[in-house]
Order: sequence, then C-alpha cells, then structure tokens
Amino acid sequence: MMIKEQLGSRAAVVESYLKAAMKDRGIPARLHASMEYSLLAGGKRLRPVLTLSWAQMLGEATITDAVMPFAASLECIHTYSLIHDDLPAMDDDDLRRGKPSNHKKFDEATAILAGDGLLTEAFGLMSTASIVKGLPADRVLRAIAVLAHAAGASGMVGGQAVDMELTGGTSVALEQLRIMHAMKTGALITAACECGAILSGSTEADIENAREYGQAIGVAFQIVDDILDVVSDTETLGKPAGSDEAMGKSTYPALIGLDKSKALARRHVDSALERLTTYAGAEHQFLADLARYIVDRVY
Amino acid sequence: MMIKEQLGSRAAVVESYLKAAMKDRGIPARLHASMEYSLLAGGKRLRPVLTLSWAQMLGEATITDAVMPFAASLECIHTYSLIHDDLPAMDDDDLRRGKPSNHKKFDEATAILAGDGLLTEAFGLMSTASIVKGLPADRVLRAIAVLAHAAGASGMVGGQAVDMELTGGTSVALEQLRIMHAMKTGALITAACECGAILSGSTEADIENAREYGQAIGVAFQIVDDILDVVSDTETLGKPAGSDEAMGKSTYPALIGLDKSKALARRHVDSALERLTTYAGAEHQFLADLARYIVDRVY
Repeated sequence: MMIKEQLGSRAAVVESYLKAAMKDRGIPARLHASMEYSLLAGGKRLRPVLTLSWAQMLGEATITDAVMPFAASLECIHTYSLIHDDLPAMDDDDLRRGKPSNHKKFDEATAILAGDGLLTEAFGLMSTASIVKGLPADRVLRAIAVLAHAAGASGMVGGQAVDMELTGGTSVALEQLRIMHAMKTGALITAACECGAILSGSTEADIENAREYGQAIGVAFQIVDDILDVVSDTETLGKPAGSDEAMGKSTYPALIGLDKSKALARRHVDSALERLTTYAGAEHQFLADLARYIVDRVY
Repeated sequence: MMIKEQLGSRAAVVESYLKAAMKDRGIPARLHASMEYSLLAGGKRLRPVLTLSWAQMLGEATITDAVMPFAASLECIHTYSLIHDDLPAMDDDDLRRGKPSNHKKFDEATAILAGDGLLTEAFGLMSTASIVKGLPADRVLRAIAVLAHAAGASGMVGGQAVDMELTGGTSVALEQLRIMHAMKTGALITAACECGAILSGSTEADIENAREYGQAIGVAFQIVDDILDVVSDTETLGKPAGSDEAMGKSTYPALIGLDKSKALARRHVDSALERLTTYAGAEHQFLADLARYIVDRVY
C-alpha cells in the first residue's frame, strides 16, 4: 500500500474512534454540533497517527488500542487551535478544509466555546488511556505534562501569539520565523511522537529519537505548507491560496526563495530519517515513508 | 481569626504560588503579561482554597504542599473562563474586578490566547502534583479526569453555551436556570472539593461528602451572586451592578423574588453543613464557616 492510502486508512480508524468518543457526553446540542463539525471535517489526522505509530514501533503488539484515547486527544487539540486561529480577532479565515470555518457555520461565541470544549475534553481523553485502557498512570501523566507544555503558552498557544505580532509587521528574520513555527506547529507534532514513545514504556534514548524525528518533520511540514500556499490553487488547498502573502505573513519562500525552501525541507526530512536507523519492521517503514511523503508533496 | 481573614490569608498563599509558577516559562512577553494580568488580579481563590482544605481535612499533615499545584490549576481554569466570558462575542464586559477586562487591557486575540494558555498550563500544573510533588500518579490522573469533565463541554464550557442561548430569550424556567448554573459555576466548585478528597487518598464515602458539599455551596454561591447583582452598587461588585438584568439574563431574584432566593441559598448551605458532620478539627471548622459565609454576605 502506498503511503497516502496507509495514511488514509489509519486516519479513518482515528476518525471512527473520535466519532464514538464524542457521543452521549451530555454536551448541549449546538455546542456539540459545533465541536463535531470541526473535529470530523476530515484532515490527515497526522498527529494521532504519529503517536500510534511510534507507540506501535516501540511497544507491545496490543499497545495501539490503549494509546488510542491519548492519540485522539491530539486531534482535539489540533482542531481547537484551528477553530480559534480562524476567529475574526485572529486570522479571520472564512474557509477551512473547503468548508465554512466554525464561527461562519455557527457563531463566534459558539466557536470560542467549541475550541475551549475540545481542549478540555482532550485532557479527559488522555486520562482514560490509563483509567479505562490500563496504561500505567505514571506514563500517562508524563505524557500529559509533555503535551501540556507543547500545546501551551510556551508552545503552540505562544507560537500563535508570536505569529499575530509578526503578521503585517516589517521584515521578519529567518530565525524569528523558525522559532515561531517551532512553537506554533512544531511543538505539537514533536509531542505527538514523543508521547507515543513515552506511552509505550520506551527507553530515554528511544524517547529522544521520537522527539528529534518529530522536530525534524515538524519543520519540514511547515516549510512545505508555506510552499504549497504559494504554488497551489484554492481548490487544492481548501482555503484561499496566497492567503499568507495577502495577510502579510512571512514565509520561507518569501524569505529564502522557493528552491532553497525545498532544499531546506528535504534536509530536515533526512535528519528525521537518521533517527529511524536503529529500528526495523512495518512501523519503521511507515514512519520513514511518512517523512519522505511530507516533502514529496511539493515535487 | 474570622472567616474573611482566614480566606484572605489562604488566598495569599495560593497567590504567591501562582506568581512563582508563572515565572520563567518561555512564554512570549505580551501573552505572559496578559495571563498574569488576569491571574493575579485578586479574587477570593475560592476553588484552590476548597481543594486544599478538603485535602488537609482528610489527608496527612504534609498533603497541602503536594496538592498546591493541583489547587492552583483550578484558579488558572477559573481565570481563563472569566477572560473568555468577558469577550465581545460573549458577555462583552469591559470591567472585571474593578479593572479593565483582559481584552480591553490588551486586545481580543491576546485575550483569547491568554485564556487558551491558562487552560493548557492548568493541566501541566496538575501533572506536577505527582511528577514534582510525589503524589501517587493514579490519584492525580483520577482528579484530572474529574476536573476535565467538570470544566469541559458537559460542565463549565457547556454551561456558558447554555447561558448564551438563554440570555435575552423569553422566560426561563427555574429548572433550566438551575441546570445552567450547575454546569457553568457549580461543576468547577464541586470538582475543587472532590479533587481535594481524591488527592488525599480518601475513601469513596469521603469523596462523596466532598462532592455533595461542593454541589450545595456551588448552588448557594450562584444564588448569592444573583442577589448581589441586584442589591449591590457597582463599586462593591467591581463590575456594573444590575448588569444581569440589563443583559436580559435570568436570575433567581427575578424568577422567585429576593426573599425566596435568600431562603433557598440558606437551605443549600444547610445541606453542605450536613456533609461535614462526621469530621472534626480546624479544617472542619473552616469549611463550615466558609459555607455559612457565602450566604451571610447578603445579610
């Protein structure tokens, strides 16, 4: 199976878990509809897939079932961040994945609360990885700490704050851009891999490999995103193409050109692959293919 | 010491822990300032104080130091909810505790992110109650699950969504008002007590007493809040008096009158006191005085 199909079938498993997890939770109807609208709007489910794959590569055969609630929580966090980023006070985006963004489909108050709800439910889901699925509580708590740090004010939330400050301002240095992206998108992708390793009960060396792999593909992923915003059309992207430039956002292509951006993305994929050399088997193959696939999208 | 002074001195301990906990966390400057602005803006610190007191009444002598990060996390969650509730898309409040609300002092985007940051950091703090302070991981995970449920879409966040739906609409039944408040403010106060009992390693019977005590004072607290909005002036409240009525919000005094509201609050305080009859000592006295103090504020 090609990587794209593999990704798709793994995403479908995550999707059906998410669907079931959101059911019958005593959530007011409109709020529930708003949360589901964004959570089940498709997407690659990259973060949960990374958590599951690292856990499966390093852990026992049955680990993925136990890790699933934790993996799914990463998609809740990712989705909440998209909902809040799209708000009028933030990026003011009307479209997300080809559909009206959450506050356009519902309203601003509901969109803020749907984001808050998804973020909070995420930590509830994480706890069930131990309480319901039986993973050791200390592993799950360590993973919660890692994820809270990655998603919080010194990670993803902080990255969005820095992005808002940089947007529309005067020229941004490459180093500023790198740090902003490392916080805004890199931290959560890195944590996805690291938590997979932590939850499988791995050694510190394995956990470090997961973290470094995640960091490297996180950078590659962001550069490719910047490139696609320049070279794609609106239909392919599911959001307005060229919106970064229109918003006055600094991008890798704008700062160092298209060719150098591609080369930089490729270098980071190579770094990610180096972190996989000590492993073998199907999951090793999947994680290597996934790293290559990120950058292949722009060729 | 009178209950008001006791509350004040306990709040000061929580405040100084919160101040230290927010330091040197690699949070972008403006976001950090915004989070601190609301988190350290005073307030009774009722939720952390409840967690600490229940833990101390039921646990070992040294338990409060270990429970402190978890207790402090409740104030982070409470503060984030106030910041988001004040936003223009929600209650559109310009004042909070006598000072400009977060989005007035900073801006809307920063206020949204400060709330997101505080909510996420809260779960990081909870995990350190085990990772740094050594509480058993399974206790902390159970408390995290309770708190995520209470603060999430079927609890506090859901309550705000229901409140938005009810505001300005046609007449609201007392039962709808009760359910909305139970979600919006009751759930977090209840969880504060329950988590204190859980973290101290108590029996299920003790945990139930903590939960029921919390539920009862939560209802009393909300009724009193409604009453104060009617009978107080703006200076005492720190926000515009009569704003509930102006916003078209249903309140207990509006639905059942002032006298019946006071009597209802008192009945709930009595229920709370019943849950304390099997305990003794200084913390028992404090929790009983606190329950009485809530309703005494309106006499």
